[in-house]
Amino acid sequence: MARQPIKFGILGCADIARKFSRAITLSPNSTLYAVGSRSLEKAAKFAKENDFPESAKVYGSYEAVLDDPDVDVVYLPLPTSLHVKWAVLAAQKKKHLLLEKPVALNVKELDLILEACESSGVQFMDATMWMHHPRTAAMKDFLSNSELFGELKSVNSCFTFAANQDFLENDIRVRPDLDAHGALGDTGWYCIRSILWASNFELPKTVLALRSPVFNKAGVILACSASLYWEDGKVATFHCSFLANLTMDVTVVGTNGTLHLHDFVIPFEENKASFSVATKSGFTELVTGWEPKPSEHHVTTDLPQEALLVREFSRLVGSIKFDGSKPEIKWPTLSRKTQKVLDAVKLSIERGFEIVEV
Amino acid sequence: MARQPIKFGILGCADIARKFSRAITLSPNSTLYAVGSRSLEKAAKFAKENDFPESAKVYGSYEAVLDDPDVDVVYLPLPTSLHVKWAVLAAQKKKHLLLEKPVALNVKELDLILEACESSGVQFMDATMWMHHPRTAAMKDFLSNSELFGELKSVNSCFTFAANQDFLENDIRVRPDLDAHGALGDTGWYCIRSILWASNFELPKTVLALRSPVFNKAGVILACSASLYWEDGKVATFHCSFLANLTMDVTVVGTNGTLHLHDFVIPFEENKASFSVATKSGFTELVTGWEPKPSEHHVTTDLPQEALLVREFSRLVGSIKFDGSKPEIKWPTLSRKTQKVLDAVKLSIERGFEIVEV
Repeated sequence: MARQPIKFGILGCADIARKFSRAITLSPNSTLYAVGSRSLEKAAKFAKENDFPESAKVYGSYEAVLDDPDVDVVYLPLPTSLHVKWAVLAAQKKKHLLLEKPVALNVKELDLILEACESSGVQFMDATMWMHHPRTAAMKDFLSNSELFGELKSVNSCFTFAANQDFLENDIRVRPDLDAHGALGDTGWYCIRSILWASNFELPKTVLALRSPVFNKAGVILACSASLYWEDGKVATFHCSFLANLTMDVTVVGTNGTLHLHDFVIPFEENKASFSVATKSGFTELVTGWEPKPSEHHVTTDLPQEALLVREFSRLVGSIKFDGSKPEIKWPTLSRKTQKVLDAVKLSIERGFEIVEV
Repeated sequence: MARQPIKFGILGCADIARKFSRAITLSPNSTLYAVGSRSLEKAAKFAKENDFPESAKVYGSYEAVLDDPDVDVVYLPLPTSLHVKWAVLAAQKKKHLLLEKPVALNVKELDLILEACESSGVQFMDATMWMHHPRTAAMKDFLSNSELFGELKSVNSCFTFAANQDFLENDIRVRPDLDAHGALGDTGWYCIRSILWASNFELPKTVLALRSPVFNKAGVILACSASLYWEDGKVATFHCSFLANLTMDVTVVGTNGTLHLHDFVIPFEENKASFSVATKSGFTELVTGWEPKPSEHHVTTDLPQEALLVREFSRLVGSIKFDGSKPEIKWPTLSRKTQKVLDAVKLSIERGFEIVEV
C-alpha cells in the first residue's frame, strides 16, 4: 500500500513560502496540509493563491498549526529573530522542522533548536535548496576525484543582488530586530555554505572579515567580505551584498582541476543547469592558447531543486514515521557548521577585523 | 613611401622571447633585427629557431645589442633583478623599451628606469599582452556604460597554475636572487593589473595581504592572496599561485552589471575570445530562474594579443621616430601603478598582514 504523503504546515505567509508551497505540491511524497498566519484572512488568501488542496487547514495563528496533530512537518520561513521560539516549540510538538536560513541569530540559539529536535526525535533540515540539485552531486563527484581535481587549494564565492529602495528601507533582511545579519545572513549564508561544501565541510581554523563592510543606519550589514583559513593552507574568500547586480559565483581550484559556476544558488533555468570544469589545464606550445580547454557539463532535472529538497526531507520524515528510523544527522550538522562560520565572520567584523578562531 | 618597420633587439633567450619573436614577425610594423645572449652560440640558435631574417644580427652580449645604432626597441625578458641595470642602460642608449613583467623589484627601481626613459625621450611599455586584445576594449566598453554596468562595487581575480617539480626547484621565478616576487610578481602581477584596469586605474587607498601566503625554503612566494580597498567602498580580492590548476578569472560586479571571464591573461584560443556580461539581472516570478540571463560575447582578432601589443608599441615608436611625437605616458603610468600595489601587498605580507597605505 502506498504511504500517505507527508503533511506540511507552513508558519507565516512569507514570499519564499510561495515558492515552497509549489515545491511541496510538486514533490511526490508531500502535501500542503496547513498554513497559519497571525491573520486568518491572510492565511486563507495564501492558501487560495498557492493551490492548497480544498481539504487544507487554514489557521489564524502559528500555534494552531503546531497543535494540529496531523501536521508532520513545519516549514518555518519567519524572520530569523523568531526562529528560536517557533522552531523549539514546533520540535516540542513533535513536528519535523524545515527551517529557512539563516537558521538562527547565533549558534547558541541554533543549539537550542537542535537540542529540541534531538530530544523529540524529529528531523531537522535548513532550506538551502541548491544542496539538493543533481548538479551539486555531479560537481561533488568532480571535486572528489583525486585525479581530475586533486587537493583543494582555494575557493571564492560571491552572491550579490541589487536590492531596490523599498527593500533597503523595509525588507525584514535590513531590520536589526528581525534579520540582524543582513546580507551576511542572507546571501552570505549561501557563500559560506558553498565554501564548506567545497571543503567537504571541514571547518576553517580561522576567519577574518575584510575591511569593507557596508552598514545601514541601523547597523545591519548591507555588504561584506571575509577570508577563511584552514590548517593545511587552503584559503577561501567570499563577498556578499545587497548593493550590486545579481551574481552567484563559486570557483573552486585544486591542484589538478578547476570548477566554475555562476548560478549556484538559483540555476539560470529551472530544469537544466551547467557548470564548467578543467583538469590539468596547460598551454599550447607557444602559450598562445589552452590545452586542454575547460569543458561545460549539463545536468537536467525533472523537479526543481526546492521540490527535490522537499522530496528528500519527506523521505527522511517518512522513514522515521513509518519505519522507525532515526533522524539523519547530516543536515543539522551542516547547518551548525554554516552558522559557526557566519558567527565568526560577524565577530571578526564586530572586533574591528580581528582574526577569529572558528 | 612606406615607413621602415621598427627594429627589435632582444636581450637574452628566455622562453617568453620565443612567443615575442613570433609576435614581432606577425606585427606588420616591426621586424626581428637582433638578439643578444651571453653566449653567441645560444643567440644564433635562438635566431635560427625563431625565424629571424637572414640579415638579423646575432650578438654574444647584451651590450652589443644596445650598442647597435640600428636597434629601435629593446625587448627585455631578463629576470626581474636584472631589469634596472639593463633597462636603464637601454634607455640611456636611446632604445625604446618593452619590458617584461614584473617590471622591477620595487617602485624605486622602476622609477630609475622610467626616469631614464623620460630623459632619453623613449617609449616605455610593459609586456602585459592581454591589455592589447580587442576583447579588453570590448569589456571596457561594458564597464564604462553607466546604464549597463553602473558603479563598480567589487572585483575578484585569480591566476594560478600548477608548476611542475622542475619549475618549483629551478625556475627563475622561484629564486630570490632573480625573481624575488615569485607568484606575486608573476601571476599576481596580472591579477593586480586586472583589478586596476577594472577600476579605471584608480589606485586603492589601502591593501591588506590575506593570511595565506605559501613560501619556498628560500622565502619566495609560491601562493598568496590580498584584498584592496578604495575610499568609496569598492573592494577587490585576488589569489595568485604556482600550486593550483591553471585558472585565470576576472569577475567585476557593479550596481547594474556583472562581467565574467576565465581566460583573461591568455585567451583559450588565439583568434577568438569571449566574455560574459549580465545587466540588471533578476528572477522569474517565483524565483525559479534568472531573467534576464547573462549573455556571452565573442571577439575575434586576426592578430594574437602579443602581436597587437608589438604593433601598438611600434606605432608609438614610429610616431616618435618619424613624426617627432612625445612618448605615450599612459603605459609607464599603468606599470607604475601596478608595481605600487604589488609593493604594498609584499609589504603587508612582510609586516605580518598589516594594512598598508598605497
